[in-house]
Amino acid sequence: MPLAPPALPGDAVDAIDTPALLLDLDAFEANLDAMAARVAGTGVALRPHAKTHKSSTIARMQVARGAVGACVQKVGEAEALVWGGVGSVLVSNEVWGDAKLRRLMGLTRLAEVMVCVDDAEQVWALERAAEACGARIEVLVEIDVGQGRCGIAPGAPAAALAERVAHSTRLGFAGLQAYHGKAQHLRSDAERKAAIAHAAAAVRETLAALTERGLHARIVSGGGTGAFAHELAAGVWTELQVGSYALMDADYARNLDATGAPVRDFAQALFVLATVISAPAPGRAVLDVGHKGVAIDSGLPLVADLPGVTVTGASDEHLTLAWDPATVTGPKLGEKLRLIPGHCDPTVDRHDWFVAVRAGRVETLFPIDARGAMR
Amino acid sequence: MPLAPPALPGDAVDAIDTPALLLDLDAFEANLDAMAARVAGTGVALRPHAKTHKSSTIARMQVARGAVGACVQKVGEAEALVWGGVGSVLVSNEVWGDAKLRRLMGLTRLAEVMVCVDDAEQVWALERAAEACGARIEVLVEIDVGQGRCGIAPGAPAAALAERVAHSTRLGFAGLQAYHGKAQHLRSDAERKAAIAHAAAAVRETLAALTERGLHARIVSGGGTGAFAHELAAGVWTELQVGSYALMDADYARNLDATGAPVRDFAQALFVLATVISAPAPGRAVLDVGHKGVAIDSGLPLVADLPGVTVTGASDEHLTLAWDPATVTGPKLGEKLRLIPGHCDPTVDRHDWFVAVRAGRVETLFPIDARGAMR
Repeated sequence: MPLAPPALPGDAVDAIDTPALLLDLDAFEANLDAMAARVAGTGVALRPHAKTHKSSTIARMQVARGAVGACVQKVGEAEALVWGGVGSVLVSNEVWGDAKLRRLMGLTRLAEVMVCVDDAEQVWALERAAEACGARIEVLVEIDVGQGRCGIAPGAPAAALAERVAHSTRLGFAGLQAYHGKAQHLRSDAERKAAIAHAAAAVRETLAALTERGLHARIVSGGGTGAFAHELAAGVWTELQVGSYALMDADYARNLDATGAPVRDFAQALFVLATVISAPAPGRAVLDVGHKGVAIDSGLPLVADLPGVTVTGASDEHLTLAWDPATVTGPKLGEKLRLIPGHCDPTVDRHDWFVAVRAGRVETLFPIDARGAMR
Repeated sequence: MPLAPPALPGDAVDAIDTPALLLDLDAFEANLDAMAARVAGTGVALRPHAKTHKSSTIARMQVARGAVGACVQKVGEAEALVWGGVGSVLVSNEVWGDAKLRRLMGLTRLAEVMVCVDDAEQVWALERAAEACGARIEVLVEIDVGQGRCGIAPGAPAAALAERVAHSTRLGFAGLQAYHGKAQHLRSDAERKAAIAHAAAAVRETLAALTERGLHARIVSGGGTGAFAHELAAGVWTELQVGSYALMDADYARNLDATGAPVRDFAQALFVLATVISAPAPGRAVLDVGHKGVAIDSGLPLVADLPGVTVTGASDEHLTLAWDPATVTGPKLGEKLRLIPGHCDPTVDRHDWFVAVRAGRVETLFPIDARGAMR
């Protein structure tokens, strides 16, 4: 069963039960506004990725600021968003399995729903499910633009698959999925720029091959928080799938701009609040959260407000903190402190609630209604 | 909300929706039996750690085979087990925060509940909570036996803290918590033996200091799946907190015995079932599970049944598989395959259900009722 919320609106931050996922509302709202401002007037739409926040509440806030809908990776996430009132959802991924495809078809009765393919067998499976449900669904052909994960080869192979989709009476060819995930985390701006130039060339080659077959991609979807400025400038993407910008994490904060300074387009809005449960030796303390509560796949979390105090180890339920007791005043037993997660997406997925705070108090709660929706 | 179960009893394994957590019942029951047999007649009790399986169903199965109860790390886990019918639960960890301590006191009305301390301030806090609830609780003093995480120094400091507990009218001094987590994962038997000898010496020093003060530790709790043979032989532990033995993982399977061969006391019983959603290039496939569904903190998962196919990358929702297409027949689009998790505990915590299988069919389902119970 989901956990009870760790706080009530009106509570002081220090009264929040721990571990808890904090959303700094000032930073969060500024991030939503900043990204909306970056795309305004460019002709490129925002379709923020909900795999980051797993919350229909946040997806609706993004739509309220102009986003055309949301992306998800999983059918279960699409259900949470559609049932939570989001009107257009792209499953930015291939889906396999009859039960999942039929759930997807059910959602097409409630919202605009799109899904990706990179193989003709997936097209057959989608047609069978659509037929079984009397439904119709819009499809993007995913091309591999350098990520080396999913996606058919750009150019003629992609166009042939698009033609297969377009000839179906149950499917509509909506365009291309062209996401370069690795590019988002390249540290220098020059590296990100080069990777996105390569991806844009792959998109252009595919658009030309589509034109040869008389097909039109009304959507070219891609882009991420790390490289979105280059994807926005490239002139081939029609919408951006940025996700992490709303919350941010320690990994994205390590990206550098063209001058070599850290990119600071967005502020850290996501924190894990934890309590010191043991302070057994000088210069050491142990927190009541480990990697079951804060993801470590992209590095250990950072301590937000205590310079000189670092996380030195993570186990299932504990983080160990260390500092030099000769020069630094470390946290005491019972003290609560804020951590900046190394990676926002999987950290959010371990929690049931965002505790939304402003000026030191809990303002409201957002349920993480797509938490764990991995099927 | 928790996900619906990914299968029905009677389903063939290949019909299970993915990603799903599979429990191989033959291997699992053999593991429970094997550990019960190892301690039978030794005078050392089993108190298996439920942070591994997060399931009151499994904890009751362990009790049915002779275990004296269960360990947990969190009050929320203790609630799940006590409300699920487990009669004795040790929170093998310090707990801080008035709300949590009062929840713990409530549980003492339903079951034997014990908790750890390593600081006099925690004793004060426990007394206040016990007073507020009109309750009484048994307490273990945690000593640092080499883990370098929580725990007061062995010997006189620990005995002084035990005396403080024993003098309380609301608390009972039950004994020592003496767990050496790092020792469990040392690869050679000689290293594990040496680490546990060091830990046993720390326990003996503390028992002597207790005797000097006229105190008796009726419980000395510790031990883990990696080094339990040494903890069993040491003669100072009264109960073992082994957890992973019931499920096993790729990390524990890398431990070596005294002859240098892999330890094979227990069989791999836990698998993640996943589906190939994309097979876009020769020698490459992509699965519908990433590190949101299978933990990678102790290494990437292994592919169980396909020699020559390896996991080469993990992202939030995908694992990438690679093989040499010249010599290996890799999995095809839509194929389901079993993964051996690198680390069982955090993998289980990302799922709502164990799908318990035998002879190729789903036999039953176990809810993971302490999933995410991190507070």
